[in-house]
Amino acid sequence: MKSEFVRILTNHGFSDFKADQCAEIFTLNSLEGVYSHGINRFPRFVEYIKKGYIRPNAEPSLINRTGSLEQWNGNLGPGPLNASFATDKVMQIASQNGIGLIAMGNTNHWMRGGTYGWKAARKGFVFMGWTNTEANMPAWGAKDFRLGNNPLVLAVPYEREAVIIDFAMSQFSYGRMEIYQRDKIQLPFPGGFNEKGELTADPGEILVTRRTLPIGYWKGSGLSLLLDILASVLSGGLSTHEISQKEAEYSLSQVFIAICLENLVNSGNIEKTVHDIIKNVKESYPAESGSEIRYPGENIVKVREENRKNGIPVNKDVWGKILSQ
Amino acid sequence: MKSEFVRILTNHGFSDFKADQCAEIFTLNSLEGVYSHGINRFPRFVEYIKKGYIRPNAEPSLINRTGSLEQWNGNLGPGPLNASFATDKVMQIASQNGIGLIAMGNTNHWMRGGTYGWKAARKGFVFMGWTNTEANMPAWGAKDFRLGNNPLVLAVPYEREAVIIDFAMSQFSYGRMEIYQRDKIQLPFPGGFNEKGELTADPGEILVTRRTLPIGYWKGSGLSLLLDILASVLSGGLSTHEISQKEAEYSLSQVFIAICLENLVNSGNIEKTVHDIIKNVKESYPAESGSEIRYPGENIVKVREENRKNGIPVNKDVWGKILSQ
Repeated sequence: MKSEFVRILTNHGFSDFKADQCAEIFTLNSLEGVYSHGINRFPRFVEYIKKGYIRPNAEPSLINRTGSLEQWNGNLGPGPLNASFATDKVMQIASQNGIGLIAMGNTNHWMRGGTYGWKAARKGFVFMGWTNTEANMPAWGAKDFRLGNNPLVLAVPYEREAVIIDFAMSQFSYGRMEIYQRDKIQLPFPGGFNEKGELTADPGEILVTRRTLPIGYWKGSGLSLLLDILASVLSGGLSTHEISQKEAEYSLSQVFIAICLENLVNSGNIEKTVHDIIKNVKESYPAESGSEIRYPGENIVKVREENRKNGIPVNKDVWGKILSQ
Repeated sequence: MKSEFVRILTNHGFSDFKADQCAEIFTLNSLEGVYSHGINRFPRFVEYIKKGYIRPNAEPSLINRTGSLEQWNGNLGPGPLNASFATDKVMQIASQNGIGLIAMGNTNHWMRGGTYGWKAARKGFVFMGWTNTEANMPAWGAKDFRLGNNPLVLAVPYEREAVIIDFAMSQFSYGRMEIYQRDKIQLPFPGGFNEKGELTADPGEILVTRRTLPIGYWKGSGLSLLLDILASVLSGGLSTHEISQKEAEYSLSQVFIAICLENLVNSGNIEKTVHDIIKNVKESYPAESGSEIRYPGENIVKVREENRKNGIPVNKDVWGKILSQ
């Protein structure tokens, strides 16, 4: 998979080094089961390169530094490379200053935010990061798209892996709802509103109204708004409403925070602290007998192992399209 | 109201200065309409002082500093005073280093987290903060309490006020559900599970199962877990499962992050950036005609003005109890 990605990226102007780096991230995302932001998203990534929204060899440039905070211009470089760069950089700042923040405007879709959380956590850092997006969700009480789903990532090192969350502010993605509709099944829980303004788990009804549900109703609506404000304010880049005026989703604003755990007074106990918390939660009394309580990130490790053994499952149409490019 | 609080706190061992500071926060929370963490919570605050969970004149002490990150011991001082101290301190760090983080263990309930977000935002800082709590919510897929509702606060300066979120990871608080049950009305949206394991908006059914809903189903469950891990790891203080072993909810762990906006390259445009984002969202097409789309924090300003004009409404029983103390 990676060599196919490398071939295509090289054909589209990526340097060998950048093609390798970028292909690695798309492959890793697929290996870890996040196909929507791995292989399945690759064709659109290539399309955006062709259209000039993504500039293959552009590199981020430093705009401003104030203490442990840096503002960068992504110069419309590939989102995964820019985000990877920012993650490395912010870990350096955190190593020296305990905590660091990089805000980057004018960058591109980072694909799967968790990629950068895992990267930092596996090197021993706490990671907090988020991105804004084009408008794809109504604010609470509204009908039309004014908010992005602005994914948020928090990650903590745990047994050489991570405890990590990486989620959008919308309850279900459009991709997910379309799959449920195609398979003619209801969403597991309400995910939006129908034409009567009632909560519904029917994906078809939600795809008509386009009134998707923010997580926690008004709470996720507020969180989404704040994440967009923070991303735009801290980076000086575009906000959701500005991105939405473009012909496609590019020139995003992102925030990367890293915290170094090495010099904490309790650094020797952190492994145990996290272990004990996870153990306690996993020993919960399950709502359905026999079911297992998982910590966020646990499943990724399993899927990674499975896919490493058995190969990464691919959608034949998508794979065919990639081979023919 | 404030002078009554001062009188009682002074009688319970607070120095004049600390009594004034603490009474100010309880009064402000009530003035701004958050009665549950203002006047209505005051009797329990006094009870915790009597029981020794809160030590009136204890002051936080610095344990460790690594760059822009500081670890503090709250020494079981009054939560609002410790949190207020940490907020002032973290703004100082941010002023010098762009961003600062203070993690404080062994502190107490900060009452309303928004208090500290408003405080920082009105001085021109971005604020991010959260606290852990005792276990009061099941993890996703579980029946028994293993997670706290761990409120999260994000605040950004806006027209001398703030755009601010301050919310718990549970969809509805027990206090809220009890009010709905007393008034024999359904919650506006599903807030937990009934005995059949189905989502329900019936407060009585949820109060039986105690299976409250995390915001965004599994997403809020994961976020709550990460906030607890971060608070405990960064402060070296207790985590939710350890707090829950105590006879009452004390010795909490909290995180305070401030970001200074003054030296950003776009500092002159920030007011406009936030204004434009808010304006765009407020111009949403409302789901119900005639209804207004509000930004988070907007209503607090209105309530504050109303209560300043008309006085702070109080529950007679609570007010009576306070006068008689």
